[in-house]
Amino acid sequence: MLRALSTVLNPSELTGIVNVGDDLTMHGLRICPDLDTITYTLAGLNNTETGWGLAGESWRVMQELGNLGGEAWFGLGDRDLALHLYRTQRMAQGDSLADITADVLRHFGVGITLLPATEEQIATTFTTYEHGVLSFQEYFVKYHHDVSVENVTVANAAQATPSAGVLDAISSAQRVVISPSNPLISIGPILAIPGIEAALQQRRDDVVVVSPLIGGKALKGPADRLLVEQGFSADSRGVANYYQSFASTLVIDIADANDAPLVEAAGMHCVVTQTLMSDDQRSRNLAEVVLDV
Amino acid sequence: MLRALSTVLNPSELTGIVNVGDDLTMHGLRICPDLDTITYTLAGLNNTETGWGLAGESWRVMQELGNLGGEAWFGLGDRDLALHLYRTQRMAQGDSLADITADVLRHFGVGITLLPATEEQIATTFTTYEHGVLSFQEYFVKYHHDVSVENVTVANAAQATPSAGVLDAISSAQRVVISPSNPLISIGPILAIPGIEAALQQRRDDVVVVSPLIGGKALKGPADRLLVEQGFSADSRGVANYYQSFASTLVIDIADANDAPLVEAAGMHCVVTQTLMSDDQRSRNLAEVVLDV
Repeated sequence: MLRALSTVLNPSELTGIVNVGDDLTMHGLRICPDLDTITYTLAGLNNTETGWGLAGESWRVMQELGNLGGEAWFGLGDRDLALHLYRTQRMAQGDSLADITADVLRHFGVGITLLPATEEQIATTFTTYEHGVLSFQEYFVKYHHDVSVENVTVANAAQATPSAGVLDAISSAQRVVISPSNPLISIGPILAIPGIEAALQQRRDDVVVVSPLIGGKALKGPADRLLVEQGFSADSRGVANYYQSFASTLVIDIADANDAPLVEAAGMHCVVTQTLMSDDQRSRNLAEVVLDV
Repeated sequence: MLRALSTVLNPSELTGIVNVGDDLTMHGLRICPDLDTITYTLAGLNNTETGWGLAGESWRVMQELGNLGGEAWFGLGDRDLALHLYRTQRMAQGDSLADITADVLRHFGVGITLLPATEEQIATTFTTYEHGVLSFQEYFVKYHHDVSVENVTVANAAQATPSAGVLDAISSAQRVVISPSNPLISIGPILAIPGIEAALQQRRDDVVVVSPLIGGKALKGPADRLLVEQGFSADSRGVANYYQSFASTLVIDIADANDAPLVEAAGMHCVVTQTLMSDDQRSRNLAEVVLDV
């Protein structure tokens, strides 16, 4: 979504507030999957086949770690690892995640600002019926989100504070766009940080959500399944119910055009367009719709 | 020296007590240069050209870390990094360095036991005239030990305790061999841990030192220079003065044969032989001399 918006806006006009609920410390390294995936994607370095990590990555370290009997189920490519080493060393020296992120973006030539939602370590956590309490990466990578979730909580979020600039970005933005990400586990952990949802409520008229569902299904990941498991319907109405208290407009795909009255009934203005950003033209069209509504 | 001894003894009869004063945490990773160099050497995987690290190593992560502007002066190869990730993850899970070391040795097929001198983090530290206080790796790698040292201290050693098995290994060994390592910075940090020097004193008659000097020079590293800077002479007499209170015999090279009376005068029995372990036969000969004295 950020890449799409950057085709119609100057990158310097864009600020992304990024989920850090997936962040983890593994092998002693601070790993920020969402910040890194977005950075790599904006830099054009992302692996489009896997949907994560870098294109043309090598796996020397992980291969040897597997040989040693180490925890190699969470794939960290050699080049990707360098970023985790870099971030961990700088954090050990007292630098903020926001400053490190800004330097990494500069290194990769990305002009968009990315702000971690908080500097504190929060952790999206899954209570499952089958495997007990799982960390994000256990749920997502180890079990391939193929497990029923009783409850999603964000550890430490209640004590966290928004990063410097986050509340200002929301209050001063011409438009706040909530990406077609997983509402419960990609957007939810941002909302769980005290102050952010209230800041969005203040700007409700300018907050536009792009639905993560097309034809009632998530393009990838467990958004549809999790919506149902957490008491929402896996359709535009469910998404509207989730967002309506702090967002005024829901953009849904033409495949879900019939849902429009349900969205309006749920208290959100509904815009129908093609939401699949499958090429540059469609991405640009969606960006224009989101900015124009 | 351990490899030489293993040519005349069964590996299971050998226990190495290893310096951990060089250990560091960098990029969030616990790195144990001496344990790893010895492990790689005993496994036959060491890089004989550099004197550290693994043969045939690749450098993907370090290259990218350098690109990112990270601290890449301390070279960590991709395969070597896997070991640091493995160790760091296991330590985070509460495993002891000794247990992890034992598992790593088993993985590499090494039958010799290696004990870290202590489980605590101690840090050999250099007070220099020119650059102030330096960590071991700053002194050794960053400044290539080309700097005058006012004082060597081992941070945290006074509060440290020997690892499980260390004092027993000293008290029960048929022979205690002090390797031709740097007395001040490779052996000294082991001696700085309370209890170890006293245990050696109890076994003084069975403690044999192999001098690290040949013709008054260290084969590599700053042993000769540091001996002088710390008030010892850079010759067999200086080495004898350093060790005589807890070691009865000093093995010196034939190049230093003239020093024998000085060693005896310093209170140690002196044995003269070829100490350069340049091939298997010479290594074996030295091992036999050390065990037979």
